[in-house]
Amino acid sequence: MPEKLNHFVESQQLTPSIIDYLFKRADELRPGPHTYLQGKILALLFYEPSTRTRMSFETAMSRMGGTYSSTENAEEFSSAVKGESLEDTIRVVSKYANCVVIRHKEEGSAAIAAELSKVPVINAGDGKGQHPTQALLDIYTINKEIGRLNDFKIAMVGDLKKGRTVRSLAYLLGKFKGIEITFVSPEHLRIGNDIKAYLVRHNISFSEEDDLNKVIPKMDIIYMTRTQKERMSEEERKNHEDYEKKGKVFAITTDNFNLVRNDARILHPLPKVDEINLPIETEEKDPRIAYFRQVENGLYIRMALLDMLINSS
Amino acid sequence: MPEKLNHFVESQQLTPSIIDYLFKRADELRPGPHTYLQGKILALLFYEPSTRTRMSFETAMSRMGGTYSSTENAEEFSSAVKGESLEDTIRVVSKYANCVVIRHKEEGSAAIAAELSKVPVINAGDGKGQHPTQALLDIYTINKEIGRLNDFKIAMVGDLKKGRTVRSLAYLLGKFKGIEITFVSPEHLRIGNDIKAYLVRHNISFSEEDDLNKVIPKMDIIYMTRTQKERMSEEERKNHEDYEKKGKVFAITTDNFNLVRNDARILHPLPKVDEINLPIETEEKDPRIAYFRQVENGLYIRMALLDMLINSS
Amino acid sequence: MPEKLNHFVESQQLTPSIIDYLFKRADELRPGPHTYLQGKILALLFYEPSTRTRMSFETAMSRMGGTYSSTENAEEFSSAVKGESLEDTIRVVSKYANCVVIRHKEEGSAAIAAELSKVPVINAGDGKGQHPTQALLDIYTINKEIGRLNDFKIAMVGDLKKGRTVRSLAYLLGKFKGIEITFVSPEHLRIGNDIKAYLVRHNISFSEEDDLNKVIPKMDIIYMTRTQKERMSEEERKNHEDYEKKGKVFAITTDNFNLVRNDARILHPLPKVDEINLPIETEEKDPRIAYFRQVENGLYIRMALLDMLINSS
Repeated sequence: MPEKLNHFVESQQLTPSIIDYLFKRADELRPGPHTYLQGKILALLFYEPSTRTRMSFETAMSRMGGTYSSTENAEEFSSAVKGESLEDTIRVVSKYANCVVIRHKEEGSAAIAAELSKVPVINAGDGKGQHPTQALLDIYTINKEIGRLNDFKIAMVGDLKKGRTVRSLAYLLGKFKGIEITFVSPEHLRIGNDIKAYLVRHNISFSEEDDLNKVIPKMDIIYMTRTQKERMSEEERKNHEDYEKKGKVFAITTDNFNLVRNDARILHPLPKVDEINLPIETEEKDPRIAYFRQVENGLYIRMALLDMLINSS
Repeated sequence: MPEKLNHFVESQQLTPSIIDYLFKRADELRPGPHTYLQGKILALLFYEPSTRTRMSFETAMSRMGGTYSSTENAEEFSSAVKGESLEDTIRVVSKYANCVVIRHKEEGSAAIAAELSKVPVINAGDGKGQHPTQALLDIYTINKEIGRLNDFKIAMVGDLKKGRTVRSLAYLLGKFKGIEITFVSPEHLRIGNDIKAYLVRHNISFSEEDDLNKVIPKMDIIYMTRTQKERMSEEERKNHEDYEKKGKVFAITTDNFNLVRNDARILHPLPKVDEINLPIETEEKDPRIAYFRQVENGLYIRMALLDMLINSS
Repeated sequence: MPEKLNHFVESQQLTPSIIDYLFKRADELRPGPHTYLQGKILALLFYEPSTRTRMSFETAMSRMGGTYSSTENAEEFSSAVKGESLEDTIRVVSKYANCVVIRHKEEGSAAIAAELSKVPVINAGDGKGQHPTQALLDIYTINKEIGRLNDFKIAMVGDLKKGRTVRSLAYLLGKFKGIEITFVSPEHLRIGNDIKAYLVRHNISFSEEDDLNKVIPKMDIIYMTRTQKERMSEEERKNHEDYEKKGKVFAITTDNFNLVRNDARILHPLPKVDEINLPIETEEKDPRIAYFRQVENGLYIRMALLDMLINSS
């Protein structure tokens, strides 16, 4: 085993030796089911519902032989009515379980939870903060799909301002060499300055674009994200439509799918809406579509992570 | 094992040899618990809550040694906010589990799910469509109660227009011989023409009535369903009350329970409201009341079904 | 094993020999996990959400090797729309499981459930009625913390009128000798006359106070409860604020924590809000803070209870 990780709160915590260990362990665990976590209990404490992420952790725990107790209703703990603090909740829940997965609306909440918990805490999304297990499964997928984690070109497309998936992944890519990132978004949804500063510090070269079609042919990985129109302000929405009128593209459709190189791969954290619009036939058969394999990889890497955190704690 | 069933979407898929196999298997599995599904995971994807059906599948899976991951909140996937398609959801969820049970508001949705899922899909109710595991447990119960699935008289009572339970059961009865169905409902809640046409094609004799009391004494099985007043239009409700004023009866009460033959049985898919109104004492002791045994049978037949689908897939 | 308990509906059902048995069994089960309930299924039927209590029972069941099927949505069964009676629901659910934990808004509902259930029923809170497993874990904690269940002084503080936790505990303390209870509350939140009459009948001496600071130094156990301002009427709330203006105290803060004797213990059923306001440092390290150990004890005593009820039924 690599150096000990007590909690997994942000993707920067991952070192090359931990990453290497988890990738190998995930590959080993893939066949399943296993009994490595028999008798162990995972608590899932979700302050906002996320059925997909919850099911991924639950089935990962099941495949390892463990059990779980979940709530998507954790808001109840801290509601105006009952008013329990996050600090109290985590101290209670960490008595019941061998590990706690937390999703919360507030950035930094997973770090608070980690401080007080007697058992490992995994951040499954903290507001605008991070979603580090997503970043972990993303790089696990990239490595599986193109055979390396250094020396590749990646486009990150969509709402880069609010998407925590992109934030976590960018932080994690800072660990590797020879990566060129192109951020593709309308101006009002650009990646934050904190990320840019971090990439500069880590010598990761990046650029910004506002038209996907220009960059597709150069890319090894096209990482699509939802545009999240529902979170836009009136002005942002108008702005966005202006871009579309000018013919700027932030989506993959049958019109530009042919621009994707044969050895390139399209990833997406899912759920997707209209930023990818391809026939089911293509999605099922074309090897460039990697996002359903990415979902499955999430299961195996979470199995490896749960195993590492619980069995070394 | 009989011929292979990949998914269970509609009751017509059941052949005599599958039915025979499942009945025997359910009898064998009755004592429980078992380990036939150890290490297997069931996903329950409910787009509308149905605690009863969910608990029945969950405990069936547990009794077989398997585990499950459930959501009654699947609507979230396809909400206006996130907008994921059913097609995408099923492709994601079928990566996590060895079998998916789906309940959805739209008729035909289970069939769509079955088409894309890599693992068996079970329809647990698709809008006005079907609820085929209910029909399966119904005929399993009829066979246990009266010792045969041919040559019997059955009254189906209540809202026959919207009740998918009745639809699924009628389709399934089309597989057997010597059955006489009497549909008992107010005119505005009559069984659909599609079902009638199907029964004609399968040489099942049927008639329609609008007063339960007239038919009770002739029946071997009285299959009651909820009148679902909450789903009636203003006009239907008024219509319904007119029937009641005329003394037409669509309920079993102490007034007409004595008309039920001693060797006849009353079934109900539950939940029931006032269409059955008998003292608890009677319900607990009178052998003609079969609906609580019917619930229990549901558990065993679902165990058999899960075993067949998962272990042959 | 002590005399048989079929259901656990109210704390008065506990006899000295059952209490003694459960305490020893909880101590034995503490290390965990176990397989005593392998193949057994617990149904959690919650008509109002209580994530904390649900998770405690679920993880208790898991640690015993059993599984569970839960709903916090049981209201659905009895909604205006579907209208199933509690009697029917319990008869259905008790077919699926080896034990049913019920939480319901109506006082007396657990008793109704127990009457019809074929399997053991545990009351996890019935409106203003009782919450007897909380009382059980309270006395288990008192015994662990001060080494005895006789001859001690306890202050019960907060909303004594509506708090069912206090009711259940007071009923249970009636079983022991040499206990002196001081009820501390504003006048409008005093303990009910039924409890007082019960204590008189059982020769438990008690008094009433309206200022916590006066009584702290004499107490072995200070049992805090939430003031539940959200349930107060306009008048009660005003009344309450008048008390606070007069300098009457119903809370533990850094101002009066030093009044707590070194061998005394503070308990709280949790969640707590501002009735306890101490630095996290103090809560984590001062041995007088017993409420997080109390939570953990709840897990072990529920494991013992589930084992006793299910394995003797």
